[in-house]
Amino acid sequence: MSNINKVVLAYSGGLDTSVILKWLQDTYQCEVVTFTADIGQGEELEPARTKALKFGIKPENIFIDDLREEFVRDFVFPMFRANAIYEGEYLLGTSIARPLIAKRQIEIANQVNADAVSHGATGKGNDQVRFELGYYALNPNIRIIAPWREWDLLSREKLLAYAEKAGIEIDMKHKQGGAPYSMDANLLHISYEGRHLEDPNAEAEDSMWRWTSSPEEAPDTPEYIDLEYERGDIVAINGIRLSPAQVLTQLNALGGKHGIGRLDLVENRYVGMKSRGCYETPGGTIMLKAHRAIESITLDREVAHLKDDLMPRYAALVYNGYWWSPERKALQVLIDHTQEYVNGFVRLKLYKGGVYTVSRDSKDSLFDKTIATFDDDGGAYDQADAGGFIKLNALRMRIESKAGRR
Amino acid sequence: MSNINKVVLAYSGGLDTSVILKWLQDTYQCEVVTFTADIGQGEELEPARTKALKFGIKPENIFIDDLREEFVRDFVFPMFRANAIYEGEYLLGTSIARPLIAKRQIEIANQVNADAVSHGATGKGNDQVRFELGYYALNPNIRIIAPWREWDLLSREKLLAYAEKAGIEIDMKHKQGGAPYSMDANLLHISYEGRHLEDPNAEAEDSMWRWTSSPEEAPDTPEYIDLEYERGDIVAINGIRLSPAQVLTQLNALGGKHGIGRLDLVENRYVGMKSRGCYETPGGTIMLKAHRAIESITLDREVAHLKDDLMPRYAALVYNGYWWSPERKALQVLIDHTQEYVNGFVRLKLYKGGVYTVSRDSKDSLFDKTIATFDDDGGAYDQADAGGFIKLNALRMRIESKAGRR
Amino acid sequence: MSNINKVVLAYSGGLDTSVILKWLQDTYQCEVVTFTADIGQGEELEPARTKALKFGIKPENIFIDDLREEFVRDFVFPMFRANAIYEGEYLLGTSIARPLIAKRQIEIANQVNADAVSHGATGKGNDQVRFELGYYALNPNIRIIAPWREWDLLSREKLLAYAEKAGIEIDMKHKQGGAPYSMDANLLHISYEGRHLEDPNAEAEDSMWRWTSSPEEAPDTPEYIDLEYERGDIVAINGIRLSPAQVLTQLNALGGKHGIGRLDLVENRYVGMKSRGCYETPGGTIMLKAHRAIESITLDREVAHLKDDLMPRYAALVYNGYWWSPERKALQVLIDHTQEYVNGFVRLKLYKGGVYTVSRDSKDSLFDKTIATFDDDGGAYDQADAGGFIKLNALRMRIESKAGRR
Amino acid sequence: MSNINKVVLAYSGGLDTSVILKWLQDTYQCEVVTFTADIGQGEELEPARTKALKFGIKPENIFIDDLREEFVRDFVFPMFRANAIYEGEYLLGTSIARPLIAKRQIEIANQVNADAVSHGATGKGNDQVRFELGYYALNPNIRIIAPWREWDLLSREKLLAYAEKAGIEIDMKHKQGGAPYSMDANLLHISYEGRHLEDPNAEAEDSMWRWTSSPEEAPDTPEYIDLEYERGDIVAINGIRLSPAQVLTQLNALGGKHGIGRLDLVENRYVGMKSRGCYETPGGTIMLKAHRAIESITLDREVAHLKDDLMPRYAALVYNGYWWSPERKALQVLIDHTQEYVNGFVRLKLYKGGVYTVSRDSKDSLFDKTIATFDDDGGAYDQADAGGFIKLNALRMRIESKAGRR
Repeated sequence: MSNINKVVLAYSGGLDTSVILKWLQDTYQCEVVTFTADIGQGEELEPARTKALKFGIKPENIFIDDLREEFVRDFVFPMFRANAIYEGEYLLGTSIARPLIAKRQIEIANQVNADAVSHGATGKGNDQVRFELGYYALNPNIRIIAPWREWDLLSREKLLAYAEKAGIEIDMKHKQGGAPYSMDANLLHISYEGRHLEDPNAEAEDSMWRWTSSPEEAPDTPEYIDLEYERGDIVAINGIRLSPAQVLTQLNALGGKHGIGRLDLVENRYVGMKSRGCYETPGGTIMLKAHRAIESITLDREVAHLKDDLMPRYAALVYNGYWWSPERKALQVLIDHTQEYVNGFVRLKLYKGGVYTVSRDSKDSLFDKTIATFDDDGGAYDQADAGGFIKLNALRMRIESKAGRR
Repeated sequence: MSNINKVVLAYSGGLDTSVILKWLQDTYQCEVVTFTADIGQGEELEPARTKALKFGIKPENIFIDDLREEFVRDFVFPMFRANAIYEGEYLLGTSIARPLIAKRQIEIANQVNADAVSHGATGKGNDQVRFELGYYALNPNIRIIAPWREWDLLSREKLLAYAEKAGIEIDMKHKQGGAPYSMDANLLHISYEGRHLEDPNAEAEDSMWRWTSSPEEAPDTPEYIDLEYERGDIVAINGIRLSPAQVLTQLNALGGKHGIGRLDLVENRYVGMKSRGCYETPGGTIMLKAHRAIESITLDREVAHLKDDLMPRYAALVYNGYWWSPERKALQVLIDHTQEYVNGFVRLKLYKGGVYTVSRDSKDSLFDKTIATFDDDGGAYDQADAGGFIKLNALRMRIESKAGRR
Repeated sequence: MSNINKVVLAYSGGLDTSVILKWLQDTYQCEVVTFTADIGQGEELEPARTKALKFGIKPENIFIDDLREEFVRDFVFPMFRANAIYEGEYLLGTSIARPLIAKRQIEIANQVNADAVSHGATGKGNDQVRFELGYYALNPNIRIIAPWREWDLLSREKLLAYAEKAGIEIDMKHKQGGAPYSMDANLLHISYEGRHLEDPNAEAEDSMWRWTSSPEEAPDTPEYIDLEYERGDIVAINGIRLSPAQVLTQLNALGGKHGIGRLDLVENRYVGMKSRGCYETPGGTIMLKAHRAIESITLDREVAHLKDDLMPRYAALVYNGYWWSPERKALQVLIDHTQEYVNGFVRLKLYKGGVYTVSRDSKDSLFDKTIATFDDDGGAYDQADAGGFIKLNALRMRIESKAGRR
Repeated sequence: MSNINKVVLAYSGGLDTSVILKWLQDTYQCEVVTFTADIGQGEELEPARTKALKFGIKPENIFIDDLREEFVRDFVFPMFRANAIYEGEYLLGTSIARPLIAKRQIEIANQVNADAVSHGATGKGNDQVRFELGYYALNPNIRIIAPWREWDLLSREKLLAYAEKAGIEIDMKHKQGGAPYSMDANLLHISYEGRHLEDPNAEAEDSMWRWTSSPEEAPDTPEYIDLEYERGDIVAINGIRLSPAQVLTQLNALGGKHGIGRLDLVENRYVGMKSRGCYETPGGTIMLKAHRAIESITLDREVAHLKDDLMPRYAALVYNGYWWSPERKALQVLIDHTQEYVNGFVRLKLYKGGVYTVSRDSKDSLFDKTIATFDDDGGAYDQADAGGFIKLNALRMRIESKAGRR
């Protein structure tokens, strides 16, 4: 066990990270700095302070930050400019929060002169990778302590025993019955893994979902909303200008009310296995639909296609934890460049789990009615041109056909 | 006007292609062969025969074929193996039917020794390209007559006048009011363009939609369905084995009942302009969701990502009319190869416009419970391995960070 | 023939564009503005003025510009940052000059209030596309006159007859024997097409090549050169700081002397046919090799791979004439972003047609001797990490293998 | 140290693998099976048998195989069908041999009922990854012993001391002076790493190169060769039909004689660092040039571009050791499909380090002289078509330009 003086722990105040806090003290005999962030997970943060103090953490070593605006402005919005979806379905809700936590943790480590950072992600998941690639990219000399890869508390029983011995408060839910879902929440989404979800052939329990009404219980009347875009980001809902975090908060409320954004998925983890997760991403689901709609009238075709071609790569980079990599940044530069004219309005209809684009408008629209019309266009477009267009595009295939190829 | 002896016309029996039939006779003084196909558009075909006879078409020059099975088996299914979506939303319903019509038209041309083919697509749309690239690829010496690019009947008034003079029956709907929607239907979808859809900021009329219930009017009770896959294609619904066309027919009924598959989109045409279309693709929307679900447990991660990376290119090829191109075929060879183990079952829930995957199972599943579990896995996976994995993946970023790059 | 008042012609002063000049006057009865550019083709420009005056062109309508610096700085250098090669071999020498000519021609058209532009490219080649896509992108209302697509002077005999009648001076070489090679030259390259090159199975004549020594006749002693890079561009040769055009001029001299940069190629034209061309690109061949070398120590691996993945697309855009397209610009933004640290020195050896990298150095090098060494590295790299790295990367393949897949 | 009964060692007979052999016996107390393959490295194999016997290896546990034909036929040739180059320059000579060795080693392990395999690759390089990904893919339960990651013989001094103690014969070259180059050879190439190559700014010593004449010393007279292709593979040289290994052997002789195929490169390893290597790939360099030439007349443009777009990905898979992965196989299926018509002849000129295509011919050529000609083509191609082709391709850019975008 090498020498560690001070470690910054990503601390939620929950059972697992409390055990880690104690284990770090026990194992490394080092000063622990706790870092607790509000990224919209919807939990009180002050209890984390109280708990940290109980573990003997010095007040100046307790960091509690509200990162919601930064989270949406610098992470969620840039990602949605890319229309990022992992494996055709996943909106990357967990993935996108990790780089921010890593960044802030390293900032604190630099500030308090800590030599190590620690997190509560397990050795089987993607989150360890996302945290640690971030740590390393932002501070190449940082030491990383990943308790789940080091300790022997791999079963829930052992963990609870350790907690009990350490005097850590254990919720009823943890004491009784089996393990809870493994959950993660932030302003973009809440996720569920584990328990009987581990059988991909078992339907998720209806009681599991927390953020959204079930479509069945959602209102029987559709709701229309108007979103305004500037340079690819939503700046107003129904005519009211909002900050990034306000936008997402309100879209979550709207989407949650209408049962929007539930997903049940088997995905491929970066560490090599398949895993089944359930996700609620109400605001994000609305944002993706709306962003595609505003792009549909403001982006050039080939720019849109270039973005579509690069999207899976971008999404995999985010999923795999490469937010701080030079290749993600290079792609972002391209994507952000394309958003210059992505301005305007999108109207959506929300109804029982569905998001429907009903109209879109923009002063930067490239939709040209004169040309697109089925009516006589008065010469705006010469239909005869299409003949040459087709003939030259067909030429190579005609040559091949003449050569007898099937 | 060059010399044409015999032309095979893709003839629906409707107003436009009837005018074309007459115009071909008038203009080219040539023998016209009519070809009418059932690709699931849901219209009677025999009236087309009657009408053709009225124009003096010889009985042996009237071809009426039921191509529904071939359509789904050789076109729709292969395309869905690729999870093809154009511009993030469009399921390519119109695009995928054109190559089949072109193929059959060329077969007939060869059979009846015709020197030309003709179609009713306008000079502004994608369909002319799809038809003609197909014609040229399958018969490099064929002559193509595209009346909309040649004649001067570009306004609806002129067209109706020509029809009237020619004694062509005109429906009430055509006579009264403005132009109808430009529609296209086949087993995969029905599409709408034109009229007030030409304003992308106007919501589509509720009365426009034909195939699906509105989500609001769909049943209040969800319906579960079970789909069985073999090599990437659906072979049974709810345990009942079905032919390809039967599968799609039944999924259309199920999707239509539950309000599934409506889409309102501004898309980029191959000929260079943006256009707004509305689509109903009930069965296809279900198939896409289900195919992703069965692939999620049976496809290797990197194979799935390779497919995702190639998908937009494949979709653009289909959209642009390159079905018969060597590059589409090369991609298909890869895609089909990946489907060998895409076998198993998917259970879906259908409800008021939504399709939800609830479970999936396969004898070829790559989901490994022992490894994925949050419980102690008894050593199936060594969490310590992740440390090395992360460190080597981080190495290049650490080196860059040390070099002072941000 | 629609009404044209004033047309800006890309005028070389050679036979073909002189015939075009006259033909424009004869056919359109319009004022002709001639534009002659020095882009390094190595020809006197003043004779073009004299000839233009003979045709009655007003002195203020004769534009002669030295565009060499702009050409290399804003076109050649940006393209080489991308390591662009078309179809594995072609360095895009002709392609890259067209957008500049188009740009300047449109600038002049705007300045002199011309309503049309004209060029001497044939209707079979890529250059017409490159010119005209540029014209349209930079001035969507411009009229374009492409004489080769309009007139009936398609055979050399007719062209010469027209020239003779018009009193246009005809060189001996044109009068005698067959057609000359179709050649194009600028600071980046000289190209040859036509004549017996039209048989891809015939070896090019040794006498055809103009810019380079044959490797056989090149010096028997190798020459070493040192190139200095800043942000991806060469700024000095052998320690002497040079402007962009000076860099390329000097590299052409060096490469030409050592027989570097000859290429004999069958390429695929954008207009659909294959064509055989021979190229001499002495300086460009050196630049490509050197740029890869400096990137090899200064670019991150994944950024380099991203560039490699995008390169064929970028190259095809340039080849096809889409320099002024929004998608080429978006790619350029990404590429230029990656060049921030592409600084340093490359030493090359030039010998009888070959360019060999012998060393490279940079203050921004990411090459880390401590880690890369075969000697004991004192713990800079923990070899044990590789075990975990491999095991997690192998996991999915092991699962598949266990599932019985081959 | 877990229990191992029998291990199959990739054994060259050289110093390093001899030390490993002894170390395996000492450390694991297990039966060692030696596997020595002729993949064209140009060394006697029988001494390996003698040495193995000295270590007490049972005769039936000594496997010596000539894999040259399999190597070229099933590994080198398929890779060259893809025109694979890593990072713009490296022909993957080392990478492509590893999967074959892994495959044969696993076959032997299965045959002799061994529970482990072992190799002599270090923990810093790519080869460990290539070997082990192969092992795991082909036998998911195999145990792998990677001595360089386990033992403490990381310095050359310790290794030599161990060897001496074990009575292993040490060459003079190893005893004296510093470490030798780290070399790897097979029918495709020989590579050099280490020593003063570790400084990327130092020129490689002329005495280092072994397989090729220096260009300076190569013959003063060029040599022409004719290669015949069938389905993308060379089947004859100068009219003489040859087996795959014969083809490569002869091309190596020809290329080596003419100083062809030397490369000095800094490359990015999969394990995260940059490394400098020198390579001689005489035959491969010729094959790449020739394969591009035969494809240039026989492949469709878009198929060729699809291959070019996928090539860097394919090359990275081979480089990183994913030969046996399902994604490499899927890509290979596509690539092999494209080679159906890659038949014909290529003539090359070899001279002092250079390979020049001078002509190419094929009964499957898609080069159409009638269309490509600069002379009057008698109507084979209608130049007027190009106008429509350009106008439709320009349409979106004109619309953008009208919208005021730059």
